[in-house]
Amino acid sequence: MNAFATHFRLTEEDVIIYAKDTLNLFSKRARLRSKEIGDGNINYVFRVWDEDTQESIIIKQADILLRSSGRPLDIDRSRIEAEALKQQWQLSSGFTPKVYQYDPIMCAIVMEDLSDHQLMRTALLKIQIFPLFAEHISSFLVNTLLPTTDLVMESANKKALVKKFINMDLCKISEDLVFTEPFFNHKGRNIILDENMDFVEREIYNDSELVLEASKLKHYFMNNAQALIHGDLHTGSILVKIDSTKVMDPEFAFYGPIGYDLGNVIANLFFGWANILVTKHGKEAEKFILWLEETIEQVVDLFKGKFIESYQKTVTEVSFKKENFMNWYLEDILEYTAGTTGLEIIRRVVGDSKVIDITGIEDRTARIRAERMLIMSAKRFIKERDCIITGKDYTRIFRSLYDELYLNIE
Amino acid sequence: MNAFATHFRLTEEDVIIYAKDTLNLFSKRARLRSKEIGDGNINYVFRVWDEDTQESIIIKQADILLRSSGRPLDIDRSRIEAEALKQQWQLSSGFTPKVYQYDPIMCAIVMEDLSDHQLMRTALLKIQIFPLFAEHISSFLVNTLLPTTDLVMESANKKALVKKFINMDLCKISEDLVFTEPFFNHKGRNIILDENMDFVEREIYNDSELVLEASKLKHYFMNNAQALIHGDLHTGSILVKIDSTKVMDPEFAFYGPIGYDLGNVIANLFFGWANILVTKHGKEAEKFILWLEETIEQVVDLFKGKFIESYQKTVTEVSFKKENFMNWYLEDILEYTAGTTGLEIIRRVVGDSKVIDITGIEDRTARIRAERMLIMSAKRFIKERDCIITGKDYTRIFRSLYDELYLNIE
Repeated sequence: MNAFATHFRLTEEDVIIYAKDTLNLFSKRARLRSKEIGDGNINYVFRVWDEDTQESIIIKQADILLRSSGRPLDIDRSRIEAEALKQQWQLSSGFTPKVYQYDPIMCAIVMEDLSDHQLMRTALLKIQIFPLFAEHISSFLVNTLLPTTDLVMESANKKALVKKFINMDLCKISEDLVFTEPFFNHKGRNIILDENMDFVEREIYNDSELVLEASKLKHYFMNNAQALIHGDLHTGSILVKIDSTKVMDPEFAFYGPIGYDLGNVIANLFFGWANILVTKHGKEAEKFILWLEETIEQVVDLFKGKFIESYQKTVTEVSFKKENFMNWYLEDILEYTAGTTGLEIIRRVVGDSKVIDITGIEDRTARIRAERMLIMSAKRFIKERDCIITGKDYTRIFRSLYDELYLNIE
Repeated sequence: MNAFATHFRLTEEDVIIYAKDTLNLFSKRARLRSKEIGDGNINYVFRVWDEDTQESIIIKQADILLRSSGRPLDIDRSRIEAEALKQQWQLSSGFTPKVYQYDPIMCAIVMEDLSDHQLMRTALLKIQIFPLFAEHISSFLVNTLLPTTDLVMESANKKALVKKFINMDLCKISEDLVFTEPFFNHKGRNIILDENMDFVEREIYNDSELVLEASKLKHYFMNNAQALIHGDLHTGSILVKIDSTKVMDPEFAFYGPIGYDLGNVIANLFFGWANILVTKHGKEAEKFILWLEETIEQVVDLFKGKFIESYQKTVTEVSFKKENFMNWYLEDILEYTAGTTGLEIIRRVVGDSKVIDITGIEDRTARIRAERMLIMSAKRFIKERDCIITGKDYTRIFRSLYDELYLNIE
């Protein structure tokens, strides 16, 4: 077991010995079991539990190669994930899994087992309602983001964090997959339904204004070291149960624009919404849709309210504490939020990395129409981003495109 | 001579032994002489020369304490200066002193002796004309800045440079002295002529729109890792002779906004201009003023022309190579340039760090008026920065305020 010479990848058997003998996390007599439960592409996630006491932990090990393609990926992301998780746990008072230990040699994060939660993406597709979600996620965002800006931190301390969280490889993935490939069909990696090919060509590739705005948003993403953001905050990075919300997997964390996190949450709620709108009918579905619509609005509006409240309490720096600066700063965040919402929608519909909310729509006509209405609302989120500032601005645009493109299609 | 235990500060005697015996830069028999020629606050600059051959070098040693106050200052700035100099020398084909060697233990940069040049600030006050200056400085700026952006560099390589050039202490100096203290009289460090106290209070401290714009520019400075900038490009960092321009002292270098460098050059040319306008008369002064006015215009316009030319040759990245993106990017640079010009003018007139161009105006009434016209043009550069895009836009504003506030004062 020479972890120094090459990367030693744990198996279900190894991880028991590792947890018991190397990390001393269970008693020597414990009868441990383990299971690899990861569904991602770049890491291995083991649940390890004691048969008798039912005590359990998660051990997440980063691999040096992508699971799918075998392409190498910077292993430093594991340190970044562990450090971001610890910081977010502390700042958000527990809206992430608690990290018990990080092993930099094995690139393994030992953390709280949240198997009593489920992935939010899965839960939404089962039309389950989480009445506290908007409250929780807006608190998580405000509490993890604002305190890491140089509005609150000392200039030098913030710069030290910027340095610590430079995340070359994973930022490059976002730069390519979110901001570039979908708009240029760069490297030919986009995956589009045949029936939507012409539509995408006309509405995306040939819309030079849209492509320009996407490029500006990309440049902003690459250059604005605003806050320590999660960097990949879709509903597959969020665990929920009825009274709890946990944000995990911040391996894309780096100093970037605040609006990038908020916009990703909004876009991924829209995917759930689009799925249920076109696949489910009846009372229960209607109730769910109403809740989700309200939730999207609340995520935006609660974020704004809590942001202002926290700003007024914590920003004391002489240049930044004034109300007119705060208003400008918040408008800038909201503008980038709307832009990101549009970008995330387009990249999931057009780009290489899909979401089950859309690919899982079995009725082909329904999926074609859903994709079109998503694309058209995304375009408005991007182009009109300086006017999209309330929760209702989002749902209004989406609703009108649903009516126009989905219901009234010839 | 224990350089490891504490910082060993060289004297004129030590530096001869150091150059000959430690660095082996001269023959063992050379009869060396040395002189400390630094006029800065944070470093010691030695000229070392061979009495017989007249070969010479400069050794610049960073101290761990400020010369004036004894306050400690991050010694890492010395590494940053050496690395920035080497990179700028290469990118600009020699518009900086050539670095022969860097000694990280002694924090000493051994470099080309440019004693045949003079400080540009001094030369301007002697109404000396440098017909090639606009050509040279615009080439220096375009050639050192654009290639370090992520428009030209690979995303990961650029991020590695951002990390390498995180420059906490010296950025903090700029954040305080340029962007904060002058607008709030923060820490009471501003130094203002009694006769201009009310004027400054009304036109700066109480102009909430101006203060807001300065705060936005500060936030941009702290968060926009656009290019490896010089960071302190005033006329005291530039050496000139009739056919040569050399930019030195990049210890403030970090990844920041391109417009910050260009704006500093423009502002400092205005100081020379203001000085001569109000202190000198006659044919020679008039000729000088004409040249300087033209030079200010050319610095802006040549920068733009060369920037576009270089952009079209070197930017091949799919999102950024399009002409509409380039135009937006250049406009953004020019906007920040005008803002910086205004900030640099205000901080030198109002703030703690003065320039001899202004403090050297002996006629008190002339100085009072010169300061007022500088402040009023600075305000326009800041507030109207999105419309200031040609060289003439600068000189026109300055001229009109000279006519209004200097010539027609009651």
